Amino acid sequence: MAASEAVTDALRELHARYAGVRGGRRADYIPQLARSDPDAFGIALVSMDGHCYSAGAADAAFTLQSVSKPFVYALALSTLGLDEVSRWVGAEPSGEAFNAISLEPRTGRPANAMVNAGAIVTTALVPDRAAVPAFTAVLSCLSRFAGRRLDVDEDVYRSEASTGDRNRALAYLLRSTGTLPVDPVAAVDTYFRQCAVRATAVDLAVMAATLAHGGVNPVTGETVVSTEVAAQVLSVMATCGMYDASGEWLLRVGLPAKSGVSGGLIAAGPARFGLATYSTPLDAAGTSVRGSAAIGALSERLGLHLMRNPALPGSTVTLVTTADVLPSAPSGRRERALRERVGVVAAQGALDCTAAERVLYALDETGPERAGAVVLDLREVTGADSVALALLHAGLARLAQDGRRAAVVDPGDRLGPPDLVRERTGQDLPRFGSREEAVERCAQAVAGPG
Amino acid sequence: MAASEAVTDALRELHARYAGVRGGRRADYIPQLARSDPDAFGIALVSMDGHCYSAGAADAAFTLQSVSKPFVYALALSTLGLDEVSRWVGAEPSGEAFNAISLEPRTGRPANAMVNAGAIVTTALVPDRAAVPAFTAVLSCLSRFAGRRLDVDEDVYRSEASTGDRNRALAYLLRSTGTLPVDPVAAVDTYFRQCAVRATAVDLAVMAATLAHGGVNPVTGETVVSTEVAAQVLSVMATCGMYDASGEWLLRVGLPAKSGVSGGLIAAGPARFGLATYSTPLDAAGTSVRGSAAIGALSERLGLHLMRNPALPGSTVTLVTTADVLPSAPSGRRERALRERVGVVAAQGALDCTAAERVLYALDETGPERAGAVVLDLREVTGADSVALALLHAGLARLAQDGRRAAVVDPGDRLGPPDLVRERTGQDLPRFGSREEAVERCAQAVAGPG
Amino acid sequence: MAASEAVTDALRELHARYAGVRGGRRADYIPQLARSDPDAFGIALVSMDGHCYSAGAADAAFTLQSVSKPFVYALALSTLGLDEVSRWVGAEPSGEAFNAISLEPRTGRPANAMVNAGAIVTTALVPDRAAVPAFTAVLSCLSRFAGRRLDVDEDVYRSEASTGDRNRALAYLLRSTGTLPVDPVAAVDTYFRQCAVRATAVDLAVMAATLAHGGVNPVTGETVVSTEVAAQVLSVMATCGMYDASGEWLLRVGLPAKSGVSGGLIAAGPARFGLATYSTPLDAAGTSVRGSAAIGALSERLGLHLMRNPALPGSTVTLVTTADVLPSAPSGRRERALRERVGVVAAQGALDCTAAERVLYALDETGPERAGAVVLDLREVTGADSVALALLHAGLARLAQDGRRAAVVDPGDRLGPPDLVRERTGQDLPRFGSREEAVERCAQAVAGPG
Amino acid sequence: MAASEAVTDALRELHARYAGVRGGRRADYIPQLARSDPDAFGIALVSMDGHCYSAGAADAAFTLQSVSKPFVYALALSTLGLDEVSRWVGAEPSGEAFNAISLEPRTGRPANAMVNAGAIVTTALVPDRAAVPAFTAVLSCLSRFAGRRLDVDEDVYRSEASTGDRNRALAYLLRSTGTLPVDPVAAVDTYFRQCAVRATAVDLAVMAATLAHGGVNPVTGETVVSTEVAAQVLSVMATCGMYDASGEWLLRVGLPAKSGVSGGLIAAGPARFGLATYSTPLDAAGTSVRGSAAIGALSERLGLHLMRNPALPGSTVTLVTTADVLPSAPSGRRERALRERVGVVAAQGALDCTAAERVLYALDETGPERAGAVVLDLREVTGADSVALALLHAGLARLAQDGRRAAVVDPGDRLGPPDLVRERTGQDLPRFGSREEAVERCAQAVAGPG
Repeated sequence: MAASEAVTDALRELHARYAGVRGGRRADYIPQLARSDPDAFGIALVSMDGHCYSAGAADAAFTLQSVSKPFVYALALSTLGLDEVSRWVGAEPSGEAFNAISLEPRTGRPANAMVNAGAIVTTALVPDRAAVPAFTAVLSCLSRFAGRRLDVDEDVYRSEASTGDRNRALAYLLRSTGTLPVDPVAAVDTYFRQCAVRATAVDLAVMAATLAHGGVNPVTGETVVSTEVAAQVLSVMATCGMYDASGEWLLRVGLPAKSGVSGGLIAAGPARFGLATYSTPLDAAGTSVRGSAAIGALSERLGLHLMRNPALPGSTVTLVTTADVLPSAPSGRRERALRERVGVVAAQGALDCTAAERVLYALDETGPERAGAVVLDLREVTGADSVALALLHAGLARLAQDGRRAAVVDPGDRLGPPDLVRERTGQDLPRFGSREEAVERCAQAVAGPG
Repeated sequence: MAASEAVTDALRELHARYAGVRGGRRADYIPQLARSDPDAFGIALVSMDGHCYSAGAADAAFTLQSVSKPFVYALALSTLGLDEVSRWVGAEPSGEAFNAISLEPRTGRPANAMVNAGAIVTTALVPDRAAVPAFTAVLSCLSRFAGRRLDVDEDVYRSEASTGDRNRALAYLLRSTGTLPVDPVAAVDTYFRQCAVRATAVDLAVMAATLAHGGVNPVTGETVVSTEVAAQVLSVMATCGMYDASGEWLLRVGLPAKSGVSGGLIAAGPARFGLATYSTPLDAAGTSVRGSAAIGALSERLGLHLMRNPALPGSTVTLVTTADVLPSAPSGRRERALRERVGVVAAQGALDCTAAERVLYALDETGPERAGAVVLDLREVTGADSVALALLHAGLARLAQDGRRAAVVDPGDRLGPPDLVRERTGQDLPRFGSREEAVERCAQAVAGPG
Repeated sequence: MAASEAVTDALRELHARYAGVRGGRRADYIPQLARSDPDAFGIALVSMDGHCYSAGAADAAFTLQSVSKPFVYALALSTLGLDEVSRWVGAEPSGEAFNAISLEPRTGRPANAMVNAGAIVTTALVPDRAAVPAFTAVLSCLSRFAGRRLDVDEDVYRSEASTGDRNRALAYLLRSTGTLPVDPVAAVDTYFRQCAVRATAVDLAVMAATLAHGGVNPVTGETVVSTEVAAQVLSVMATCGMYDASGEWLLRVGLPAKSGVSGGLIAAGPARFGLATYSTPLDAAGTSVRGSAAIGALSERLGLHLMRNPALPGSTVTLVTTADVLPSAPSGRRERALRERVGVVAAQGALDCTAAERVLYALDETGPERAGAVVLDLREVTGADSVALALLHAGLARLAQDGRRAAVVDPGDRLGPPDLVRERTGQDLPRFGSREEAVERCAQAVAGPG
Repeated sequence: MAASEAVTDALRELHARYAGVRGGRRADYIPQLARSDPDAFGIALVSMDGHCYSAGAADAAFTLQSVSKPFVYALALSTLGLDEVSRWVGAEPSGEAFNAISLEPRTGRPANAMVNAGAIVTTALVPDRAAVPAFTAVLSCLSRFAGRRLDVDEDVYRSEASTGDRNRALAYLLRSTGTLPVDPVAAVDTYFRQCAVRATAVDLAVMAATLAHGGVNPVTGETVVSTEVAAQVLSVMATCGMYDASGEWLLRVGLPAKSGVSGGLIAAGPARFGLATYSTPLDAAGTSVRGSAAIGALSERLGLHLMRNPALPGSTVTLVTTADVLPSAPSGRRERALRERVGVVAAQGALDCTAAERVLYALDETGPERAGAVVLDLREVTGADSVALALLHAGLARLAQDGRRAAVVDPGDRLGPPDLVRERTGQDLPRFGSREEAVERCAQAVAGPG
């Protein structure tokens, strides 16, 4: 490691900057949290390729507490689907604290799966099966998110269980409104165990990275949940993950996140990174003071804010004058005609819907008054998603209906298998290996037999 | 227009699909809304290049109502900055209806600028100036977002004013808690005028596109607000824009959005598109029924959900074996040595922090055991943002500290001006025009004078 | 004055006991209250005969503020009746502070007329009439309750008006829910004037005594409101008069009461006394600290708690053995027969329903096995209300149906006019001037012609 | 029974009037209530002498449910005192429904002992003792209120226990805020048993009469709780007993009351009657529809409204001119002198503080300008409470200090034991057996040796 040590350096620098911050108070409702080391401070970052970076006490183990909530929500969504899960728990920020005793007036559902009431319901949705008790399924799921076998801190579990009257109250309240499908005592017991699962900041960063990576653990390569479920979980984290400070967090930090009372904090930059910190002193909203500062600074530094306009599109689309294509000696009438009658559009990079629209618009700009035919050069395109392909196919079909002649330079079949292209565009689109050849042929076709 | 007509086709198809939907009720608190055409239905989409697409009644004019809120919030943020604006209005979803009579318990602030109380405060933050009364500033700002001069529907304004007692109540309540900096009557009057500004679905799509485009109107090219302000506004729209249905909306549709009681609805895909619809029948949360369905479907179809893992990264990073670089005839000992001692990393596309980390990690993978020197080929890089550059510079500096030799193939100076690179990397990094040349030189250097 | 000076002494003693109490804070939202003398402390008591007693600064004038609310509620009830007033304002304790911004969910009404929202509505219910603007009616009503012409402290009125944004907010909110029948600005202006009406602790005690005295001012003798309205107002004071401390107040002090922010406090012992105090430092619930202590002690000392079982009934009912009635020498068979066949029931004092039931029960206890006839002796009855009379008549009718012979000793016609008695009892009830005569005649009748 | 049958007739008439009312719905959360006879309707009334009257199904047994709450509150108050009980449960109307999940923000206490949360705490305050488990104490207390041994409907208890999740939620919530002193499961179990205690409308009327009678069961004569505790319980019933309809109830009916979900309803007229009804269909506030109508009508008919000014005071005070006292032939100078120099005040009936003040005021009205001496005639006084005596003693002491001569006609020692009178008045007050004698002696004393 040498070059990528620069990433670790960035984490170390943030660690140094915030390690001395003294604000916040440790949770003290159970002795294990009250006794936790207030100076321990770890930061971890995991990339979509599964590269792990960390600084400070990133390998110190602590209990997940509320950080477990989005992952068990993911498990419930995977098992039952969004529609069924939504019958039991909502997805609205409640404007209330994490342990608020309130349910949605009309439905009796908890507002969302990030507050305790909603998390208890979510855990209760994981069924006990003959061979697999609910908690085994929960632990297995958390472990797959982390990429290693996690375990339970039995001491913390017992403490939670002995002080968990408010959560029991929530469970009985849910049961009484018909929004808890199982026995309240059992549901809360499983929930306490889930909260007492032990992990490190690095584990948390891997878990967050798995959500950011569309549900595929970037370290193990395992598909833990579907892309759709990962997106659903990130959405709820974005609006509800930081309880009644969620709006301010999205405004300032710009990432889906989840805090826990034991000092853990995760954030996910979709398709970018999983981030996590560990530091036990909490602010009034129950968020780790140092963790919040460090992740905020990291988001700022890496430009991860979801709403910041990325400076660079992943693709470029160029209108190429035929002059640039054809031999540099435009000697006669024929060359001039060619230049007037054949347009060239070249795309480069990765094509999504945005890029596809640009391509189509550029094809139109080489319209009839300028060119009788158009060549779409896709040689430098590195990939295209299905949305982009569908749009390109539809655009090329439209061109054909309009009587315009088109050809593609697409040796790598970026436009998709010829059969699909034929079906979608309604024609046998001429394909060429080089731009020059394509222009020549189009020019001849346009010029006609003369 | 022919190829890009495919985009319009997509809008037309959605229009056809939802035009027949019959649910919802028009607002009826003023006669103009009660009399509005319940069948009028328009959809518009504007790209980051300013291309406009639309279907149905996209040119029908209606009053902005609450759709004006994010834009006036943007004006206040531009004028006063986030910190000052945050003294007066929060950024938290309230879990309550748009016209809730409630302020934050501790601060007395409205929860956010998307509910009426917060919007009235926001409008009140726009100062009356000698030459420019507050409303003139508001109208001018809205017009610049739309890219054309908007006007006020005086009839609607008068109706709003005559039925606006609840908003007056909010203004007096705010004044009484010290969270309204101006006269309540004047503030509400300006607010009523703002709500009565008239625009079309196409105007709304341009306004949304301006936010999605970092504050620059993609049609006029005018910078209306800063990139930072645009991101702030989109963040608050993401958590609060759809009132007490905001969480569900982000979960299902995945875009910052804002609804209005007159049937307008906007959504913004950052760096992708601005979307807008117009249809007056509203659901229980006050959102246009057809608009909600159409924008949801559009987001699904175009893959705009913020939390969906984009299928394609905007860049690729490749470890290239030296064999692919050097002449195809690997005849002697020297060639073998070269292949073992010089690694090549090639990057392609647009580099952001994610891609930069990948580059650094790849440089390390060509580490000492494999290569004594490393060549970074940036010829096919189409751009790099400042975060990526800083990370690359830091990584190259690290390599040098580690005693590894590096060179770049960077005829386009993608790595930044040589002076900056020298300063950041602490060395005169050898730059070459072709990969072959770079490898040759590195190999010689590594091999030493023998 | 000498004997009744003992009452004044009791007030002086309480004054001395609490004058030194230092807790509480003056209201400071307007300068006039912030500058008020925190040491001024007055106590006043007015009896049902209009006798006034006082101690300390009982003649210091101050503004009524919320103490005006029950009296204007009385005016509204007098003008419109309970049913109509209840359409606009409820009678439920709200569990909230005096200036809470909340209305009943289902009806949009303010919870009750003692909180600001309800008081504003109540004031608004007093109509402007051609000759009598609403405020003139209000001032006239307050003056009749006080028994002298009150006036407005114009300085305080102006200060209230200039800081009254929260009340304006309430008025507009009410207007917006359709629960304010007039213009909000006018309603609040009248309300501010009403709050600024000036009175002394003695005035307040007269006002409270008027409510306690069934609506008749015991000093002037004027009927200000009906007995029914007075009872309605006292009822609402009992449950809502002390805002969110009303329950605790009724529990500890046991009297309908009303506090005001300017330091006034009234309490009413129905058919007993009107009480009032003045002292400006307030507790957290907005009640005068010294006033609360003094009235609590006074209630304790005078035994005014509504729920304390009065030690003494206002009437006695005695079963008299005939032996006590007839000549002391019961020599023969005839006397013994008399004693066995004629029962005597004697009542004394004031008869209400409770006493009437006792009389009837006693009549039955002189039943067939004991006496063939019964004599009801009402000579020492001082009065009987209509409820008691109706019950007595019904009981005597029942006796007759049962075939028992009855007679009354009622020289004062306590049983009501003979015609009414005949109609109600269905018989010509024998009436006698003396008990002996009645017993003799009954005995003869029972014994028969033998 | 014959005469007092008139009382029963009144109940029968109300029964007939309301038996046909069809509104309301039976509770259906447990099968026993859902199956109850909706037509069963009983009314009962018990006097302060323990006379019982009833009509309809007044002997049908049903479970107490919430009607048990005030009585167990009385038990807790008796055991621990108001101050200790108030640490655990408040006395404020909450403005919320009976089963609201909310505690006082500052203290975490339930608002009052009439809502479920407060009732569970109240029950929990009854301690388990070695020999007497808590429920045994509860059942014993309820039985003493009823005057007979009550029992538990075990079926209902089991049903309550199996559907009582909301109450368990409340218990755990209380436990979590530190406001439940015992195990939640045990507390709720005892509470369910308490709710399932079985009684009849007649039992309920006896229980209510015991509260109205200062804690002494008027049928058995047993002192169940102290006068003070009875008053405390009635106070809380007055403000909180009918949940969020308590204010309206006190306004319209004017009596402390308590409703139960099983159709029971009690009301207490302090020192008047205990009332109860049974009919299972309930209104929206959970009150028996027929019960509410019948008790409202009964209060109206018997004039029991607490705030209605009783038409008749229990006492009269008369200024008697000496002319009425002395021999009818006022022949000479001496008689004239007497008439001018000796005043006579005669009181009659029961003396409370109100009457005592009247007496003192009357003594003053026979002031120096009219009379040199005053005679207070107490022969027709039937009793005087301690407050009245203290006031009379203080007034007579004052008179003496003022140099006025006084004498009392008090053969029955209504003024208290001579020693106490001497101590309090500071003199040996001359006492006489007849008015004439007293006037004569006073006149001689005033006239002096001439």
